[in-house]
Amino acid sequence: MPRYALKVEYHGAPFAGWQRQADQTSVQGAIEAALGNLEPGPHTIAAAGRTDAGVHALAQVAHCDLARIWDPFRLSEALNYHLKPLPVAVTACAPVADDWHARFSATGRRYLFRLLMRRAPATLDAGLVWQVPHRLDAAAMRAGAVHLIGRHDFTTFRSSICQAASPVKTLDALDIEELDAPTGPEIRFHLRARSFLHNQVRSLVGTLERVGAGAWPPDQVRAALDARDRAACGPVCPPQGLYLAGVGYDNDPFGPRD
Amino acid sequence: MPRYALKVEYHGAPFAGWQRQADQTSVQGAIEAALGNLEPGPHTIAAAGRTDAGVHALAQVAHCDLARIWDPFRLSEALNYHLKPLPVAVTACAPVADDWHARFSATGRRYLFRLLMRRAPATLDAGLVWQVPHRLDAAAMRAGAVHLIGRHDFTTFRSSICQAASPVKTLDALDIEELDAPTGPEIRFHLRARSFLHNQVRSLVGTLERVGAGAWPPDQVRAALDARDRAACGPVCPPQGLYLAGVGYDNDPFGPRD
Repeated sequence: MPRYALKVEYHGAPFAGWQRQADQTSVQGAIEAALGNLEPGPHTIAAAGRTDAGVHALAQVAHCDLARIWDPFRLSEALNYHLKPLPVAVTACAPVADDWHARFSATGRRYLFRLLMRRAPATLDAGLVWQVPHRLDAAAMRAGAVHLIGRHDFTTFRSSICQAASPVKTLDALDIEELDAPTGPEIRFHLRARSFLHNQVRSLVGTLERVGAGAWPPDQVRAALDARDRAACGPVCPPQGLYLAGVGYDNDPFGPRD
Repeated sequence: MPRYALKVEYHGAPFAGWQRQADQTSVQGAIEAALGNLEPGPHTIAAAGRTDAGVHALAQVAHCDLARIWDPFRLSEALNYHLKPLPVAVTACAPVADDWHARFSATGRRYLFRLLMRRAPATLDAGLVWQVPHRLDAAAMRAGAVHLIGRHDFTTFRSSICQAASPVKTLDALDIEELDAPTGPEIRFHLRARSFLHNQVRSLVGTLERVGAGAWPPDQVRAALDARDRAACGPVCPPQGLYLAGVGYDNDPFGPRD
């Protein structure tokens, strides 16, 4: 069967997450239902990152198998037609080899986390950022983040229901960007790794927020990591600031630009 | 009565525009109702720009008169409390002189217009941009915009119901920015003038889009302006890409930063 890679953007708010659920709207379920309008199902698609409820994607990657050969442009147009009015869209589509897998062929994931620092409730950014009413010290957060880069046992920073076989992961980058957005001062966390544990990004950002607020000294991040104990983690931050920003592959099916 | 200047941010989608309406939700009506929770009304507030239905504001400016003296911080906090859950927020508040007027004291207005160029339906940006499915030629649009800068009779580019006494206005800036936003290639129009006519920004942007698409040669903008005829205008573009970005005053009540 011809296999197609799909680059997918979505707003997380109306979805119970990526993964198909029997009785709730999911991104996977929405795309599989759209595929069912093109060819008889059932359809089962796989994705690089199974994002949680409320988490957004700028560039999730999934793959689907179809019975007939589709022009990639027409396939993405047809899927977008049937996905309306849900806030999920196929932004690119490419044919791939039968053994190419959106999840298992992926060599890296990038996440973005947006944190807006202001007292007035967000209006234009509502649902798109995590808002805190106080200013954060980016230099202190960077001093805390240094301890997290590299290969570590991230037991402290993963959900108790995480199904990964090992808590050892290599965090390649955790960059902290300060910017003066039109709606207020913002911190953007840019994280990159081959793969992440369940709730790892939100656990790391929630912990670093405590450092930025002055509640934790930066070295406490090191102590929390070394504890290898979920109880040593800072508060897990909410999902609406989190974006799956990109997935990397050797020989990217969407071409050299992504 | 003590007078206060309010800087106001809002998402235009749920509002019939700035101006109070008998039977529809308006930004003015929402803020006046919130004021009624602080001091007995009726309250009547004035704003620098009476934005249309669906138009957003990053920094609208209004003023209100109250019976007692309020700490500006507490006033903005109390208003934001009572404005919930509507997507409108007071982002700054300052006491002003009795003869200071949000509209008549204003010496300049800035508008931003966001235009997203891609085929896949917007998800994260839905309601925040005008989307066109084709790429636009920014250089051609800049060549068309040159004709609009300066003092002109803008009859072609104002609504037939515009109430301004004169169609002559001075457009100080119309800058066209290209950027590669995370959700796709975007054109941002930045416009600045002492004041604008009704629908002027949307008429100008809609016309320049035709130039960018190659449907109009840049010089046709000059001919349209010279025609002083509403029928010579390009299509008026939709409101959801438009933002009132700022209002200027001699001696800005909110301090030197804005």
